[in-house]
Amino acid sequence: MIALDRQHLAPFLDDSARASLQPYVLDAHRAVLNGTGAGADMLGWRDLLLSTPPPLDAIEEVAEEIRERADVLVCIGIGGSYLGAKAVIDALTPAFAEDDLEIVFAGHHLSPGYHERLLETLQGKSVYVNVISKSGSTLEPSLAFRFIRRYLERTFDDTAERIIVTTGPTGGLLNPLRDEKGYRKFVLPDGVGGRFSVLTPVGLLPIAAAGHDVRALVGGASDELKRLDGPQANPALDYAADRYLLHEQGYKTELLAAFEPRLAGVGGWWQQLFGESEGKEHKGLFPAVAQYTSDLHSLGQYVQQGQRSLVESFLWVDDAGDGPTVGEEDGNPDELNYLAGKTYAEINRSAYEATAAAHAEGGVPNWTLTMPGLDARSVGALIAFYEHAVAVGGYLLGINPFDQPGVENYKQKMFSLLGRPE
Amino acid sequence: MIALDRQHLAPFLDDSARASLQPYVLDAHRAVLNGTGAGADMLGWRDLLLSTPPPLDAIEEVAEEIRERADVLVCIGIGGSYLGAKAVIDALTPAFAEDDLEIVFAGHHLSPGYHERLLETLQGKSVYVNVISKSGSTLEPSLAFRFIRRYLERTFDDTAERIIVTTGPTGGLLNPLRDEKGYRKFVLPDGVGGRFSVLTPVGLLPIAAAGHDVRALVGGASDELKRLDGPQANPALDYAADRYLLHEQGYKTELLAAFEPRLAGVGGWWQQLFGESEGKEHKGLFPAVAQYTSDLHSLGQYVQQGQRSLVESFLWVDDAGDGPTVGEEDGNPDELNYLAGKTYAEINRSAYEATAAAHAEGGVPNWTLTMPGLDARSVGALIAFYEHAVAVGGYLLGINPFDQPGVENYKQKMFSLLGRPE
Repeated sequence: MIALDRQHLAPFLDDSARASLQPYVLDAHRAVLNGTGAGADMLGWRDLLLSTPPPLDAIEEVAEEIRERADVLVCIGIGGSYLGAKAVIDALTPAFAEDDLEIVFAGHHLSPGYHERLLETLQGKSVYVNVISKSGSTLEPSLAFRFIRRYLERTFDDTAERIIVTTGPTGGLLNPLRDEKGYRKFVLPDGVGGRFSVLTPVGLLPIAAAGHDVRALVGGASDELKRLDGPQANPALDYAADRYLLHEQGYKTELLAAFEPRLAGVGGWWQQLFGESEGKEHKGLFPAVAQYTSDLHSLGQYVQQGQRSLVESFLWVDDAGDGPTVGEEDGNPDELNYLAGKTYAEINRSAYEATAAAHAEGGVPNWTLTMPGLDARSVGALIAFYEHAVAVGGYLLGINPFDQPGVENYKQKMFSLLGRPE
Repeated sequence: MIALDRQHLAPFLDDSARASLQPYVLDAHRAVLNGTGAGADMLGWRDLLLSTPPPLDAIEEVAEEIRERADVLVCIGIGGSYLGAKAVIDALTPAFAEDDLEIVFAGHHLSPGYHERLLETLQGKSVYVNVISKSGSTLEPSLAFRFIRRYLERTFDDTAERIIVTTGPTGGLLNPLRDEKGYRKFVLPDGVGGRFSVLTPVGLLPIAAAGHDVRALVGGASDELKRLDGPQANPALDYAADRYLLHEQGYKTELLAAFEPRLAGVGGWWQQLFGESEGKEHKGLFPAVAQYTSDLHSLGQYVQQGQRSLVESFLWVDDAGDGPTVGEEDGNPDELNYLAGKTYAEINRSAYEATAAAHAEGGVPNWTLTMPGLDARSVGALIAFYEHAVAVGGYLLGINPFDQPGVENYKQKMFSLLGRPE
């Protein structure tokens, strides 16, 4: 379902280098399929799509209850317990859409003002909470959950009904609390890292609560992963191989630019998926994001003529609707009559095609990933595409794409500054 | 008012190189002050703050009318006609704040769905429009303005009262239209480029309409620029000089990370200011942005251990409010009682200090810019700081920081694809 257009990459890649790499690409692909690479105990995200699906009935049932009973759902989580749900909800929600249920994220930073005013804004509303953390000890969500839990206990008689915990099967700090208080629980299965967890209850409960079709989302992902597992022409392997070759050529940054603002959140999720999977042992392309055409008017100058260490991947939606059609206007005061008969979609496509060509001419290798639409199946397919590509790409780089050893460094210093007991 | 902490930069910079550079830094500084460098005809942003202030009385008067009469203000603009207003409004607006006036941006991209639904969402509301474009011929805002203008003409009897044009003193396509229709007009003075225009009516009218104190904003900027013009220790020159030396050492990307989500928009504005000013002749640091602590859980791994081509600048707010204070909880189920008595602000500060130290240890040179608060004077000072620093930095790089020749490349191709007449 996801197509990869490599026409503006060809001038920057050596065909023979690509051919020489292909056996290694297939080895990496097989290591993912067969679970024989580094970190293979963290391939559970594949099982979700291929053999042991998430509990969609239970997720839909609780989501329905939330939509009936709550004014606000507070989703408490950070990193992989936040970015996936936000990405999918933003991608699937039309601009200016209104919903009776407000979804608010919390515990995803330490802003004093945000969390103070969050408690104020909940006053007088029917609140549900989904607290999402494998360990239950990550500082930001734990802290937010402490304040919000106390607010719920002071405010409602049925707090236990209003708090839903998403955590590991056993262990951590949320399981004992949940057992004591009687909160409902969804499981983040072992073997699924945070940045691969969007299609577990971690992402699916908030997405379902927002009114989106989690069956189509998971189905789209599952179908795409099965396609990418097969022997046919494989765009995820091409993307991974191209990235590796560009990395070896010395490129430093991959700029993901979507031409649809609803995909901004996908950019944030992609940054974690690729940055955290590949950014180790002083390797990896730094994942940056842009929103086009908006950022053509801010970052466009740099991309066209700045330091030549960028590669660019465009995220294009084949059918994002037509939008308004331009008409003729008397007197043509804005000189736009030449566009008469064209839709916004057609004009946006011309902007994209021109950008891809101009940036390649300026020295920026670029590809385009095209998703069929802004529907749940397409978004699911995109998730599976990127997950498979980053796993293969990590093995090409010779690193374990499923760990994140570097995130402890600042945490140790922070806990020391805060005086946390050993 | 803006302080620069360079403690985590020292290990990466050679003191003698910095000393050798200093005469060139002072030359660049004087070239900005005296208007003797490249692009000096575009130093009008300095005049605004030093001699010919923007028409604040008129801006406040129209803003007050908008706040009284409109439900929605549609701000039509892109790049510098959008990012500055958004940055300041986001920075000054508390989380979850509600306002009777809704501010909606438009014409800042070509999304079909966004612009279709925008027209729908305006139905039944009292709408004002501020269309902001020097040329009046930039595709995205011209197109949006055509649709919205027609909607207003069909819907209201007093359309001329509801449309406010911000454009150049003469010329372009908006001036004749405005003369014909009788729209009110604010002037973007000659000599001020789009990315330096936030403290002209371009930014100030939307900011004032959002209910913020434009006098304090401009006053803070003016006081800061006067300070930076003076002979004393100059943090803007240090920032520019440090960036130059790091650039010469081969660093590719500057990651601006704020520890306060209200500053996300400042990051977008900063990206244009630095990327468009410096990103030419294959020079410049690529400007990337992150929101911490959130993105410590997504990009943090890469920053700590990925390719060593990043420098990092933290944006810290000295007093962003205390936020809630942690209490003791019976049984300590989340093991957070060690934080009892600490405020969110204190915990956020520990996270920032730990991050700065850990990333430096990991090989990422970093500074911190500290602004006093999240108030208008502080935001104004930050704007002046960055504007002065980028001008000096551009001269150090040997480029004209005030032009943007590379943005034409994709536009020419796009207009060709769209069949625009010569």
